[in-house]
Amino acid sequence: MTSTMRAVQVVGYHQPLQMTEVPVPEPQGPFDVVVRIGGAGVCRTDLHILEGQWAEKSQVTLPYTIGHENAGWVHAVGSAVTNVAEGDKVIVHPLITCGLCRACRSGDDVHCATNQFPGIDTNGGYAEYLRTSARSVVKLDDALEPADVAALADAGLTAYHAAAKAARRLTPRDRCVVIGAGGLGHIGIQVLRALAPAEIVVVDRNPDAVKLALAVGADHGVVADGGHVEQVLELTDGAGAEVVLDFVGEGGSTSEGIAMTRKAGDYHVVGYGENVDVPTIDLVSAEKNVIGNLVGSYDDLQDLMALAARGAVTLHTQKYALDDFATAVGDLDAGRVRGRAILVP
Amino acid sequence: MTSTMRAVQVVGYHQPLQMTEVPVPEPQGPFDVVVRIGGAGVCRTDLHILEGQWAEKSQVTLPYTIGHENAGWVHAVGSAVTNVAEGDKVIVHPLITCGLCRACRSGDDVHCATNQFPGIDTNGGYAEYLRTSARSVVKLDDALEPADVAALADAGLTAYHAAAKAARRLTPRDRCVVIGAGGLGHIGIQVLRALAPAEIVVVDRNPDAVKLALAVGADHGVVADGGHVEQVLELTDGAGAEVVLDFVGEGGSTSEGIAMTRKAGDYHVVGYGENVDVPTIDLVSAEKNVIGNLVGSYDDLQDLMALAARGAVTLHTQKYALDDFATAVGDLDAGRVRGRAILVP
Amino acid sequence: MTSTMRAVQVVGYHQPLQMTEVPVPEPQGPFDVVVRIGGAGVCRTDLHILEGQWAEKSQVTLPYTIGHENAGWVHAVGSAVTNVAEGDKVIVHPLITCGLCRACRSGDDVHCATNQFPGIDTNGGYAEYLRTSARSVVKLDDALEPADVAALADAGLTAYHAAAKAARRLTPRDRCVVIGAGGLGHIGIQVLRALAPAEIVVVDRNPDAVKLALAVGADHGVVADGGHVEQVLELTDGAGAEVVLDFVGEGGSTSEGIAMTRKAGDYHVVGYGENVDVPTIDLVSAEKNVIGNLVGSYDDLQDLMALAARGAVTLHTQKYALDDFATAVGDLDAGRVRGRAILVP
Amino acid sequence: MTSTMRAVQVVGYHQPLQMTEVPVPEPQGPFDVVVRIGGAGVCRTDLHILEGQWAEKSQVTLPYTIGHENAGWVHAVGSAVTNVAEGDKVIVHPLITCGLCRACRSGDDVHCATNQFPGIDTNGGYAEYLRTSARSVVKLDDALEPADVAALADAGLTAYHAAAKAARRLTPRDRCVVIGAGGLGHIGIQVLRALAPAEIVVVDRNPDAVKLALAVGADHGVVADGGHVEQVLELTDGAGAEVVLDFVGEGGSTSEGIAMTRKAGDYHVVGYGENVDVPTIDLVSAEKNVIGNLVGSYDDLQDLMALAARGAVTLHTQKYALDDFATAVGDLDAGRVRGRAILVP
Repeated sequence: MTSTMRAVQVVGYHQPLQMTEVPVPEPQGPFDVVVRIGGAGVCRTDLHILEGQWAEKSQVTLPYTIGHENAGWVHAVGSAVTNVAEGDKVIVHPLITCGLCRACRSGDDVHCATNQFPGIDTNGGYAEYLRTSARSVVKLDDALEPADVAALADAGLTAYHAAAKAARRLTPRDRCVVIGAGGLGHIGIQVLRALAPAEIVVVDRNPDAVKLALAVGADHGVVADGGHVEQVLELTDGAGAEVVLDFVGEGGSTSEGIAMTRKAGDYHVVGYGENVDVPTIDLVSAEKNVIGNLVGSYDDLQDLMALAARGAVTLHTQKYALDDFATAVGDLDAGRVRGRAILVP
Repeated sequence: MTSTMRAVQVVGYHQPLQMTEVPVPEPQGPFDVVVRIGGAGVCRTDLHILEGQWAEKSQVTLPYTIGHENAGWVHAVGSAVTNVAEGDKVIVHPLITCGLCRACRSGDDVHCATNQFPGIDTNGGYAEYLRTSARSVVKLDDALEPADVAALADAGLTAYHAAAKAARRLTPRDRCVVIGAGGLGHIGIQVLRALAPAEIVVVDRNPDAVKLALAVGADHGVVADGGHVEQVLELTDGAGAEVVLDFVGEGGSTSEGIAMTRKAGDYHVVGYGENVDVPTIDLVSAEKNVIGNLVGSYDDLQDLMALAARGAVTLHTQKYALDDFATAVGDLDAGRVRGRAILVP
Repeated sequence: MTSTMRAVQVVGYHQPLQMTEVPVPEPQGPFDVVVRIGGAGVCRTDLHILEGQWAEKSQVTLPYTIGHENAGWVHAVGSAVTNVAEGDKVIVHPLITCGLCRACRSGDDVHCATNQFPGIDTNGGYAEYLRTSARSVVKLDDALEPADVAALADAGLTAYHAAAKAARRLTPRDRCVVIGAGGLGHIGIQVLRALAPAEIVVVDRNPDAVKLALAVGADHGVVADGGHVEQVLELTDGAGAEVVLDFVGEGGSTSEGIAMTRKAGDYHVVGYGENVDVPTIDLVSAEKNVIGNLVGSYDDLQDLMALAARGAVTLHTQKYALDDFATAVGDLDAGRVRGRAILVP
Repeated sequence: MTSTMRAVQVVGYHQPLQMTEVPVPEPQGPFDVVVRIGGAGVCRTDLHILEGQWAEKSQVTLPYTIGHENAGWVHAVGSAVTNVAEGDKVIVHPLITCGLCRACRSGDDVHCATNQFPGIDTNGGYAEYLRTSARSVVKLDDALEPADVAALADAGLTAYHAAAKAARRLTPRDRCVVIGAGGLGHIGIQVLRALAPAEIVVVDRNPDAVKLALAVGADHGVVADGGHVEQVLELTDGAGAEVVLDFVGEGGSTSEGIAMTRKAGDYHVVGYGENVDVPTIDLVSAEKNVIGNLVGSYDDLQDLMALAARGAVTLHTQKYALDDFATAVGDLDAGRVRGRAILVP
């Protein structure tokens, strides 16, 4: 067994990430699982961590290893682990949850009363090994490889969760508007296509993103150029869509999204940034709902992996060696990444 | 048959209501029903109509008869009416709906594409007779009298609708906060008591209203005196309630209501006035929902009458002769009405 | 306006159908709609009617016109009809419903307290014109033709209803077994494909039907040759499927279907013939449900037409001139019809 | 710490239970919890075990300690237990579940893929101490005592589960028929009263049981004397109830229960014994559902304890010293127990 490993760490805010040699983690509790990383997604949140935006919220002690979108192979397990064994190919749910609180007992583990978030408030996956829990690992189908699906662990899972919640009420006569066809929206459209019979209308500022959205399953594309609310209303009998999924959450998308929502419809907030600011009379007279969405549960991740295994959800990735972490982070910051950047140890 | 009748009409905005003699309405379409009024609720909305607040929205032509909370006896029916007959005791749903649009076909008639609203945009019930539709009349149990239940037709129905929607997710371990124990809140508490096993916490500025709320079924009462958000959190493990029903919707109740809502909980907007203004990050990170609520459907009114018939929902009323309409309206405006004011022809 | 028309009538049980000249129906009630028939499906139920199997149940007076799967163009409307106009292309829901009973008010019109069933208990569509109701006609998309979709009005609608009910609980990790890939099963598979992300396993005695099922969207095909229950269990982790849809209902399919159903799963009865005969201890210890299914509602028909309009559900038809009704009925009886036989006036 | 304890064991089928001295159980796995028994319910299943009815199914090795309805105080905990501590007052869910399989992850732990059932297939609670799991213990409110609630752990939990499932669809206009007002039915009625606004009709052969049912919340009582199906139909508009809960499941109750079920209604099987034997045509034409019910989940037990803590569900008990186990078992067998017999160590 290797006794030390490479890990990319936050050593100070507004400082570059730094590669260091640290001990390989070992199982400590009976449900611990150590995963040999096969791929770790590089996410915009990682940039925000470096800018110190999460410092107060996470209360993490520096230095620590970042990376919260991880997949790989089981390397070692605690004494009570029965669901995976050494060598199993797995994707890692972003949270470590307790399994005993009310939320965990009802399948809603994302709201676990005492969760940990590797890569945010404890050591993450920009490394050769990661310690997580038996409750967080999902076995992968033979058809899937860790480096290809790692980014589904958080970004993809968030999109899945929102799209699956939305899909529950969508019928063949309904319309679903997707605002934002970037990383999350792209997955969201594929999930909607798989789960719901509704017509999908996609809205994005970038004509190329709209084109891509149509290629992966959207029925109508609208370039957000000022007349887009009007265009969406035209596509929906002048009345708006039964469901709007907003993967943007800033730059005016919230009031536009609510305006695109039909009477008795659901406006889903996924992306964030600005305030939802809406007269109560509008919510009441049109009986609209504003629905919050967080990352998906462990069950959601299982479902998403089932879709991925049959090719219903795919993701474009750009791979980098772990040693090239600085290039990957720089490319993301500069907008040079197509799809998602993945670090491969 | 009487050929003319007394009716209280709006003759101009910012002018007193006026009693006039008008023709008794007759069935015109095959589904029309004419009701002899047994009681008509005097509602705060009636005051707003006189102030001209609804002029633009309703586009009603003056003069017209107001009154949108009506109950009485069937007086005459159109050729195709089969569900009621002359003499039947009925309460009148506030909307006249088409029965053929998508909303009507799925039981959600409140969102009928082409509805009319007697008392708002066509002649209402401050009169001896009212024309409505077979689709709007609910037969009353022998135990109920029109003048006693008239105010349940709109105010009570709105409270029922919100409370019934909320009740669907409430379990014995959940808490439901009711903000505002006035006319609507008072009914809402009784409905929650009948439909859900959750603990009910009521919040109101008025200590007497809190006392009354406890008497009709609330488990805990909190006087809104500045420390009430804190008090509600203390009553809910420091985490807030699974559901909050806000019957106020102004004076800061929306941000307080959202603060009282637990992670993954529902904040219901029923009362209106101010804006909901909340950071998207709060909705996302706590996965909270803001749920709009309009008046209830015809089915809701049937359900509410079933509760009323067995005494599970009661309402204090103060009755006035139709000729004393000016006194009733004046008493309401001056805050002299206990419960609801009812005009009896 | 034509004053008489051709109509194919039942003149006596165990006697051949007979073409006669009868008056063209006219609107009688305010909601009546007369449809000029574009296509009328020939259904196995029509054979059963001739054998007298429905005589007691329907209490119909002979002679009368049969045919309960109808589509065409609106020819005339009653005084209160607003949802269609002369010339509109429509498919006809098989029931005429009241719109006022509790079932109708909640969207569940199939359980209308006072419905009529043209072709069964009143004059149907093997004719040039049919009288139905405004509540029963669904406007067709430009892309659809009456003769192509007529058979969706009853057979297709039944399959849609069951598949849509089943789809509500199906997730990407679930399996749905379809027993019987004939007329209904064939549609059911297409609907499941459109509405649910589950894996579809089809079981049929006929290898050609299994092949066709795979072509329209099933993931696995099993020929029912004695080892089929075992094969389905192998395809479902040895534990059975979350949902089983039984379009057969005889020849042992009910006990086999329940055996293929996983713990906490749903076994849907659609086809009928034999008894469901199952020990209560099996239902209790495995917590299985036996779900009855009737024809779909008006809303279901709207949804099915939306799927058909976008090509998600298609049906093979074999058309006959109305005058060739005897050939069509004979072909059906002799098993010579591929897909559904349609009479075109 | 005591090193040995008294335990009542099955030493052979068709032989009397025998008190023996055995080692006090200790935590073995990290999630084990040892409970000092405060009360153990004596259940009819215990009689069946002695008759050997469970021998093949449970595959238990004799001798072993019976007793599957247990409550008491936490005596010792495994290394990873965080939800309870020594001294906590708890009720014990009847199953030990894995927490990692699909069923456990979604809150449906009763269908755990690898569960154990103390008292049935491993040592139970007719003893001074019982080993269970952190996942199986529910902390009791100060207001509740172990010996008073022990019988809610299985019998009560089964009734809760069925009544709570049924309650989800019950509205103020609905009727719910409860067949059997014995141990389970008695709890079921109280749960329905707390969770649903429907009218409750109870049916039992024993006039005293019917009287008791009315006292704890039923609205109508029917003595099953031959005319009871007819009487129930009279109480339900001649059409039957939306929901029927059958706590008997033998002696003809299944066909009677289905006959009492309204079109589109649910017939719940809880008690068992005979076969459900019903023509598919009846299930299809009336669209009725037959719903299986097993014991409740851990979440259900938490909810039931919340109701018990506020006095909404109570149970009559007859207490015996553990040493008097033979008397308790004999009294139960002879029908001399009022309510539930409880052994107190």
